Amino acid sequence: MNFLRRIVRPQNKEDENFYYELKELLNFKPIKLSHYKKAFTHRSLKLVDAKGNPINYERLEFLGDAILGSVIASYLYKKVPEGDEGYLTQMRSKVVSRDHLNSLGKDLDLIRFVKSNITNNQISNNIHGNIFEALIGAIYLDRGYNYCHQFIYEQVILPYVDIERLEGKISSYKGYIIEWCQKNKKKYSFDSYEDTGNQSKKHFSVRVSIDGIMIAKGRATSKKKAEEIAAKRVYYAMQDRMKNS
Amino acid sequence: MNFLRRIVRPQNKEDENFYYELKELLNFKPIKLSHYKKAFTHRSLKLVDAKGNPINYERLEFLGDAILGSVIASYLYKKVPEGDEGYLTQMRSKVVSRDHLNSLGKDLDLIRFVKSNITNNQISNNIHGNIFEALIGAIYLDRGYNYCHQFIYEQVILPYVDIERLEGKISSYKGYIIEWCQKNKKKYSFDSYEDTGNQSKKHFSVRVSIDGIMIAKGRATSKKKAEEIAAKRVYYAMQDRMKNS
Repeated sequence: MNFLRRIVRPQNKEDENFYYELKELLNFKPIKLSHYKKAFTHRSLKLVDAKGNPINYERLEFLGDAILGSVIASYLYKKVPEGDEGYLTQMRSKVVSRDHLNSLGKDLDLIRFVKSNITNNQISNNIHGNIFEALIGAIYLDRGYNYCHQFIYEQVILPYVDIERLEGKISSYKGYIIEWCQKNKKKYSFDSYEDTGNQSKKHFSVRVSIDGIMIAKGRATSKKKAEEIAAKRVYYAMQDRMKNS
Repeated sequence: MNFLRRIVRPQNKEDENFYYELKELLNFKPIKLSHYKKAFTHRSLKLVDAKGNPINYERLEFLGDAILGSVIASYLYKKVPEGDEGYLTQMRSKVVSRDHLNSLGKDLDLIRFVKSNITNNQISNNIHGNIFEALIGAIYLDRGYNYCHQFIYEQVILPYVDIERLEGKISSYKGYIIEWCQKNKKKYSFDSYEDTGNQSKKHFSVRVSIDGIMIAKGRATSKKKAEEIAAKRVYYAMQDRMKNS
């Protein structure tokens, strides 16, 4: 057991911090930290391995992009049985668009892990999406496809991928909930509070209550995003109730 | 046991034939035949399910394309550690090019399974690649990612994907072997014979011998392809020997 622990447990304080922050982010235990280190290494550091091959996240980006594409394809295939090939292709493009991936990378605050020789104002906005893809690549190498699937599902699809919104049916869940409450003469409240915990980036939590009963919570890096996440959960809870009634 | 058998075993003669042919093709047991039936159903049959959604292979094509892309990406990532992102992207495009997929679909003779209302001369060449992709999609739904990986690896990558050839380093393995033998004063022979077995499409086998010793065999739907497969195996056997000596 001790022997196993020594393999898996990080060797020094910096690795230990990295390990625990990663574990919180991934929601599972990373095994080979070197994959994740590579996913957060910018080419400007000019690192090379023993064979002279560059160590940076660019190859992992290629790998992660492909894995992400297949997980999203499989999600959409199962989720929208009536969508034809053209529809599925279009929806996937929206989910994996550069803008969307940059926003995901930012929400997960991946930039905190990045090591580079460039200054903050040299960083392009695309770095957020690129390291997000590279992280998927690292998960694949470290734990295989099923862990990528789980991570993408929990961290991307559930909180952010939204067929109704991508189809343009709903532009704001908060707006939808408010309108519904007004129409049905219900009292609603969106209560927000700072909830950063031990993360480096500021976070907010929001509770949505209807007629004094708390229906759902949301948490994100801005109040507005947390409200949308919470409102979306209320929306789906309402859909489920309608289906079952 | 009998109960399990009844679930898995096909219900009628046609399904039974389909099951055994599939099993031979896939090299593992298919579970839910309906996925594979869909993968070989052309839209011209105008089939719909109970909810009115069309039953044909077009959605599975979308899914299979994505899965294939990620398996090939992962193969290339591991196989060519010195290849940068641009190289990997370019090589993957070659492997999953329409022409290459059509040729794979033809080699596996997938068209024998297709049900459609169109006549042979209405069939476009692309159908071979499309049903190949759809088959990958069906495997994914039936048995998951790892079985797709195995199938793609055994049936696509090993016999057909060839970094050296894709890079343009070697245009014909047979040519390479003959040249090598002449240079090194070795006697060589390529002996081919018909080897169709119980398959519907004609197949050929080829044995390559050097100085009277059989080095490798190949089998394919044409003599030329079988020769290339066998010669490629000889080539890799030579590479391995050089590495280990």
